[in-house]
Amino acid sequence: MASTALFYVTYVFCLALGLLCVVCAAYWSSRWRGGFAWDASALQFNWHPVLMVTGLLVLCGYAAIMYRVPFTWQHKKQIWKLVHSGLLLSSLLLSTLGLCAVFDFHSGYHIPDLYSLHSWVGLSTTFLFALQWALGLGVFMMPCSPLGLRKLLKPVHAWMGGAIFILSVISCLSGINEKLLLTLNGSTAEAYSTLPPEAVFANFLGILIVAFGLIVLRILTNQKWQRPEQTQEESQLLPGDS
Amino acid sequence: MASTALFYVTYVFCLALGLLCVVCAAYWSSRWRGGFAWDASALQFNWHPVLMVTGLLVLCGYAAIMYRVPFTWQHKKQIWKLVHSGLLLSSLLLSTLGLCAVFDFHSGYHIPDLYSLHSWVGLSTTFLFALQWALGLGVFMMPCSPLGLRKLLKPVHAWMGGAIFILSVISCLSGINEKLLLTLNGSTAEAYSTLPPEAVFANFLGILIVAFGLIVLRILTNQKWQRPEQTQEESQLLPGDS
Repeated sequence: MASTALFYVTYVFCLALGLLCVVCAAYWSSRWRGGFAWDASALQFNWHPVLMVTGLLVLCGYAAIMYRVPFTWQHKKQIWKLVHSGLLLSSLLLSTLGLCAVFDFHSGYHIPDLYSLHSWVGLSTTFLFALQWALGLGVFMMPCSPLGLRKLLKPVHAWMGGAIFILSVISCLSGINEKLLLTLNGSTAEAYSTLPPEAVFANFLGILIVAFGLIVLRILTNQKWQRPEQTQEESQLLPGDS
Repeated sequence: MASTALFYVTYVFCLALGLLCVVCAAYWSSRWRGGFAWDASALQFNWHPVLMVTGLLVLCGYAAIMYRVPFTWQHKKQIWKLVHSGLLLSSLLLSTLGLCAVFDFHSGYHIPDLYSLHSWVGLSTTFLFALQWALGLGVFMMPCSPLGLRKLLKPVHAWMGGAIFILSVISCLSGINEKLLLTLNGSTAEAYSTLPPEAVFANFLGILIVAFGLIVLRILTNQKWQRPEQTQEESQLLPGDS
């Protein structure tokens, strides 16, 4: 009982922290970077951090910890698998839009694509995420998928999800650092090294993202908070529940 | 038996990958950044990536997975705890030297300290690592430390170790990206955006570090590779073994 109460406190804190990350990413773009547009200008780039933080990080984290919520254990898992894959589909769509935002901006200003380590890791993360989503759909959502395959791939799917989430945190952190180094360059804007308010705010956004990432991983790895495993008989009765 | 063989293959691959990260970090500094010195110049800075990758990342990862090696299960855990804490002490000393290298360089060139997100996360990681080491020494190595406290803090210590290791990977990746953005600026060196050989090499170092990080985490989280837990009777007989 105490463990359930502690779970819900941690869970609500995690949800709030994720929301705060999205709000801060949006505030950074609107307060210091001129707001939003979809016209291949720097204002289109501003969607990039907001969409990636929302899609690849926060929604991805929310979808990962969903199965740990005791409330969901009362219902058939199939329902929550739909919610899980739906959340991750939104996550994938937002991330793809976030990538379009940066590619369009580069194209508009003739800036080369995919040279920085941030872009290499970020694109690989989105690619792995799309692959994981498609494999998850094929293996765990299709009624024709054999039970043996589901059982075999379930721990791989869960572990890969965690790894992709860590890669998302790495991508976000290196991206914020890169954006600040490129824009707060001391010529067109105050230097990053003088820590103007924008730099302090965006650095704190980075710290919030790390905190959100660690809390999601804490929820995922706490054995006491795992969804109770169904018996073999139950899983044979409900093949869609694996 | 198959699991043990797979463990050793993964373990040796992980050791080799860690070594390769150190060699690549050293090669980057010596091949493209002018080599090493300890004179508050840019050559002193060059120790920073090498010492941080060696200390905060590779030795830290090696020390974390050490208890998973079946060979170590044949001996009293106390011996391997000494090896674990010794490795982490070397790790801490190298990381501290790595921080001195960058602070001295900044001081020599009047560059402000601790403004970037990389520096915030990196310094926090080293601080948490030092705290974790000191608490680990007090709780798990001191004969006077009560058994109840050891049992209570063991999972916290293991989880915090994993979290600090993830922070190390984040620090390394954001640091490599930052160094390339600052040095390959198109005026004193070829632009990062043109992907000169140095940029490709250092980006690949980043990918190697991510691969090393994920393999360490895979070894740590694989339940089949956990050190077998001793019985309560054994732990009462050998309080130093908790």
